[in-house]
Amino acid sequence: MLVNDQFRYEMPTKIEFGAGKVAHLAQYVTEVKGNRVLIVGDLGVLHAGIIERIETPLKKANIPYQIFSEIGTEATIESVANAYRVAREMHCDVVVGVGGGSSLDIAKSVGVLLGNGGEIRDYVGLDKVPAPGKPVIAIPTTAGTGSEITRFSVLSDKTEKAKLSVGSMFNCPAVALVDPELTLTLPPHLTATTGMDALTHALESYVNKETQPISEALSLEAMKRIASSLRLAVVQGENLNARKDMLLASTMAAMAFNTTRLGLAHSLAIPLGAKFNIPHGLVNAILLPEVMRFNVIGNPHKFIEIAHIFGEQIDGLTDREAAEKSVSAIRKLNEDIGIKQKLSDFNVKEEDLEEVAQEAMLSGNTPINPVKPTIEDLKNICRAVME
Amino acid sequence: MLVNDQFRYEMPTKIEFGAGKVAHLAQYVTEVKGNRVLIVGDLGVLHAGIIERIETPLKKANIPYQIFSEIGTEATIESVANAYRVAREMHCDVVVGVGGGSSLDIAKSVGVLLGNGGEIRDYVGLDKVPAPGKPVIAIPTTAGTGSEITRFSVLSDKTEKAKLSVGSMFNCPAVALVDPELTLTLPPHLTATTGMDALTHALESYVNKETQPISEALSLEAMKRIASSLRLAVVQGENLNARKDMLLASTMAAMAFNTTRLGLAHSLAIPLGAKFNIPHGLVNAILLPEVMRFNVIGNPHKFIEIAHIFGEQIDGLTDREAAEKSVSAIRKLNEDIGIKQKLSDFNVKEEDLEEVAQEAMLSGNTPINPVKPTIEDLKNICRAVME
Repeated sequence: MLVNDQFRYEMPTKIEFGAGKVAHLAQYVTEVKGNRVLIVGDLGVLHAGIIERIETPLKKANIPYQIFSEIGTEATIESVANAYRVAREMHCDVVVGVGGGSSLDIAKSVGVLLGNGGEIRDYVGLDKVPAPGKPVIAIPTTAGTGSEITRFSVLSDKTEKAKLSVGSMFNCPAVALVDPELTLTLPPHLTATTGMDALTHALESYVNKETQPISEALSLEAMKRIASSLRLAVVQGENLNARKDMLLASTMAAMAFNTTRLGLAHSLAIPLGAKFNIPHGLVNAILLPEVMRFNVIGNPHKFIEIAHIFGEQIDGLTDREAAEKSVSAIRKLNEDIGIKQKLSDFNVKEEDLEEVAQEAMLSGNTPINPVKPTIEDLKNICRAVME
Repeated sequence: MLVNDQFRYEMPTKIEFGAGKVAHLAQYVTEVKGNRVLIVGDLGVLHAGIIERIETPLKKANIPYQIFSEIGTEATIESVANAYRVAREMHCDVVVGVGGGSSLDIAKSVGVLLGNGGEIRDYVGLDKVPAPGKPVIAIPTTAGTGSEITRFSVLSDKTEKAKLSVGSMFNCPAVALVDPELTLTLPPHLTATTGMDALTHALESYVNKETQPISEALSLEAMKRIASSLRLAVVQGENLNARKDMLLASTMAAMAFNTTRLGLAHSLAIPLGAKFNIPHGLVNAILLPEVMRFNVIGNPHKFIEIAHIFGEQIDGLTDREAAEKSVSAIRKLNEDIGIKQKLSDFNVKEEDLEEVAQEAMLSGNTPINPVKPTIEDLKNICRAVME
């Protein structure tokens, strides 16, 4: 029986998946009727030799391009403005984003601005983008954010230590060019934290109150692949099959949560990330087991399914015990892949929690969480992972 | 590990799912920028009182419309031409298809013609439609064809006793308005045969050589819902939860097979349907168990999964025995829902099989079937369900 039996599902982005597919980039530029390309890529992309794999097919096809790479570890409002200026100066009509979530979120923002003008602050919020932008081809190099599919861009405002979110179906890339070869050189720690971001997407969408069977099916498949391949991708970075599973899982998790949104791990991750400079995947990984523990009673049978997917022995247990096995399974996963940090490692203190909890309470992810939290509940979740 | 690890997945249609959603039809007409509507609906739609549920929201919103309902049990080339003429005369810029596969396939064809001109024969084949048509809003009243999602329209050419297929992403509806209340009055036999069509879609996509994890996840969820709800929808037509499950399953099966295509049941169903006037769902239901028996060795582990989904007891069996349990499970399902026909009931004779097999061999669904058939194999599948 359906829980949420009134819903909309849409997925405007075309997915091109496959090892080596990036060699066909020029074909996708032509398909979206692009003539001049702005490439938005971060330093990781430049250093890992990935940028050449983007440039080569464009050169071969005589498609002019300009590279923008003044990007830090987070996507900032300033980087968006700078990239947009370059795109206009060079008369670019298509944006190729390549990298982790930051590069892709900047690329998507430039696409929105090229089609709608103004500045990106004009479009912060849900459904504030009035019209389609210029097409974006998103090429992820982490198995991770799923930004290659989603309607969301998360941008940092460094002066206000806040994160701003643009959410619009016009913000979805035209093409997600999903090539697992580009993730082969991602270092173990980044593989681990971005992989936990993908897991948090799949899992929070699966248990929240807005999910529906299309997203549930995609979440389940994503979680199965993460359960079988995240440890392998961390300890055998060169294992292409593990990399394929992880990248596909992160894309499928994004197909799931793009319409359903998420839960309390994300509600808390955004203010904690912004105020204390904790990488997004890492803060999700730290929070997720404790958020699950809090949520178990809101959707016990789904947590039993999660325990089963992660290989827990649940025969003979009560439903409640079986559901709680999902929490220990994710704690073990964090340990195995070397995620041992706590919030105090980033200088989060008891006296900071009130502001974090207040901000998390306002997130769109909070009312759809399977258990309705109080401010004190949110603070207790943080306290449990302080040290 | 992925079998098909190079693929494209796209789904241009927005899905609006929910009981009673059809009351908001005017909103979707406005969303696709439609001003004058051609409603394409079959006689079942007119007789079941469904047409009023389409007209009422348009009247309330003062949106002018014209009804076209000269449709038989199959979508013919002639109906398409007639509907297109009416649409042009009335200056319609949006098509609302309501009904089973025939109505939806005619509506989609009119949408293509309104955008591209010419006649529908010009676009027969794969990817022959050059540009987007006018938007189509597809409202299924059977849980069934999945035409509300797919790029395919199957049209009958009565003079040549052949079926022609248009396959193009530009043939996908803009909106699938999926309202399970509209299926509540579908009679048991049509519920059974159209339900078996949906199952054939989910299952053939799941085991074929073009499938990939996104489609697999959708197929699995569709099969689970069909396993739990098809019998109920047949014997308790008024059971809205069973109707919701079935309609969602048929839409999800279409999301799965739209990019992967199908298998030998469909290869054979098209010529058999065209030459002997066998309804499409029924001929699929007749063929499916025998096609599965033929295919088991091409993908045994997936057939074990199917046996499990349909509640077979497989503990202690060899893999081969367990896989073959899927075949008996579908035979039992056919029996339970009253599908007892054989090909000879439609006057199919031994001497007809050569031509049917030759035509089936040319289908795009044949080379992707998990087991490569000979002409003799195809004839043997038909022989096994002759009487």
